[in-house]
Amino acid sequence: METVSINRSQGGVQGVYRHQSNVCACPMTFSVFVPDHPDGGKLPVLWYLSGLTCTHANVTEKGEFRRAASEHGIIIVCPDTSPRGDGIADEDDYRMGIGAGMYVDATEAPWSANYQMARYIEGELPDLVFANFPADDDREAIFGHSMGGHGALITALKNPDRYRSCSAFAPICNPMAADWTRGAFAAYLGSDEQAWRRYDASTLIADGAKFSEFLVDQGSADEFLETGLMPDRLASACKDAGIPLTLNMREGYDHSYYFISTFMADHIAWHAERLKR
Amino acid sequence: METVSINRSQGGVQGVYRHQSNVCACPMTFSVFVPDHPDGGKLPVLWYLSGLTCTHANVTEKGEFRRAASEHGIIIVCPDTSPRGDGIADEDDYRMGIGAGMYVDATEAPWSANYQMARYIEGELPDLVFANFPADDDREAIFGHSMGGHGALITALKNPDRYRSCSAFAPICNPMAADWTRGAFAAYLGSDEQAWRRYDASTLIADGAKFSEFLVDQGSADEFLETGLMPDRLASACKDAGIPLTLNMREGYDHSYYFISTFMADHIAWHAERLKR
Repeated sequence: METVSINRSQGGVQGVYRHQSNVCACPMTFSVFVPDHPDGGKLPVLWYLSGLTCTHANVTEKGEFRRAASEHGIIIVCPDTSPRGDGIADEDDYRMGIGAGMYVDATEAPWSANYQMARYIEGELPDLVFANFPADDDREAIFGHSMGGHGALITALKNPDRYRSCSAFAPICNPMAADWTRGAFAAYLGSDEQAWRRYDASTLIADGAKFSEFLVDQGSADEFLETGLMPDRLASACKDAGIPLTLNMREGYDHSYYFISTFMADHIAWHAERLKR
Repeated sequence: METVSINRSQGGVQGVYRHQSNVCACPMTFSVFVPDHPDGGKLPVLWYLSGLTCTHANVTEKGEFRRAASEHGIIIVCPDTSPRGDGIADEDDYRMGIGAGMYVDATEAPWSANYQMARYIEGELPDLVFANFPADDDREAIFGHSMGGHGALITALKNPDRYRSCSAFAPICNPMAADWTRGAFAAYLGSDEQAWRRYDASTLIADGAKFSEFLVDQGSADEFLETGLMPDRLASACKDAGIPLTLNMREGYDHSYYFISTFMADHIAWHAERLKR
């Protein structure tokens, strides 16, 4: 693991790191914020998954998460959204390829060679983080935005005993049903939609996956609300399955970091409460 | 005045606007954050001047000022750091030309045609803002970072009855004395250093300029501390002149937005107290 940069910020250290990923077969960059803490102590970890077109850098620079993370004593890790670099398969469409890994393990060529984001987020990156940072592997939570909100929801639903809490900003709630995301699923996972079901939060819940509860914030002025995000699908699936969902519709807010940063501290406080139980 | 973008954020509206500047003879872009407020009400205005290489966008995206601005009910305006565009004089040196207006009115060709940043910040832009936003022209304060900290200090010292308070993050305190900045002063103002004195905070104070008090935060790990910023010169000038200066040295912090954003809320609260007196 190589250190790209280190900056002191908000009573902690914001680092950016790079390592050679085995599962993605390329170098991957990620950021870690570690609040000041007693020597030898371990802190809970909150994973933040970013949306389409983002790298680790967008939320690290614009997410306004460090003050609340320091206040609550939580490490925040922000991975990249896909493998990237020369020789990595890509497509001239922001909804698939580089910057759009969809947090799935691709089974179809050429994507399967590198696009193994589920295994990366659930396995390889946590192993690296727990080995190199004062992070408590018994206290994990996960959240994210848009495609990363989708990533957080499915990762929690696939691992209900591992993550203590899960929240999302404007998540893609039912990617199998949205024209917006079906292209990427078909490319990464093939035409048999049975293989898509484990990567779709609303479908996972309909198929019996459980989680303790979800917190979702959604802007009412979000340009992707109806065609891509569909929080009503998640609400309906949670209701049928008896999973508590707090869905806050935020009047006038859009899909940008101006929206995310506004509700960031609320989400971190909500996770902190659950990570400390 | 043209609206470039509008985003709801932190209980207010973050806008970006463009207008044709007469004094800079080119289109200029700036951002304004207006917290929600009662209809017909006017809010105090806090001007933020940015550092070398920045536009309005850096602090607008990374400065983390909106939450505190909303809490205290203060409008924050972030101008650009220089004229810019095709046909604007420039130099292949980040310390002068585009992105480096130094908040002076240039007298030397070719700079004098556009680089009129003092008149722009003190006159033309406030006129535009007070005409178009719910901003109270009787309650102004000013702050900034690095070159913009220098800008805030000199603007306050030149107008002690206008700005109610002035603070800075890692300001350039004595640009006439720093090799780092002498090149830009010579280019913009000519070789007679008498003409430089009204644009140098430490020299203005030595020459008799007054201001109520200053707040300065400075990172101890700032790479420009000794060669460019020289807060000891400001401290010494303030001491001799009897101007109260609170100079906070912040252990381990550098020159980046990771530093600025950490102390942003403190500075806004400090200005709010003085704007409400």
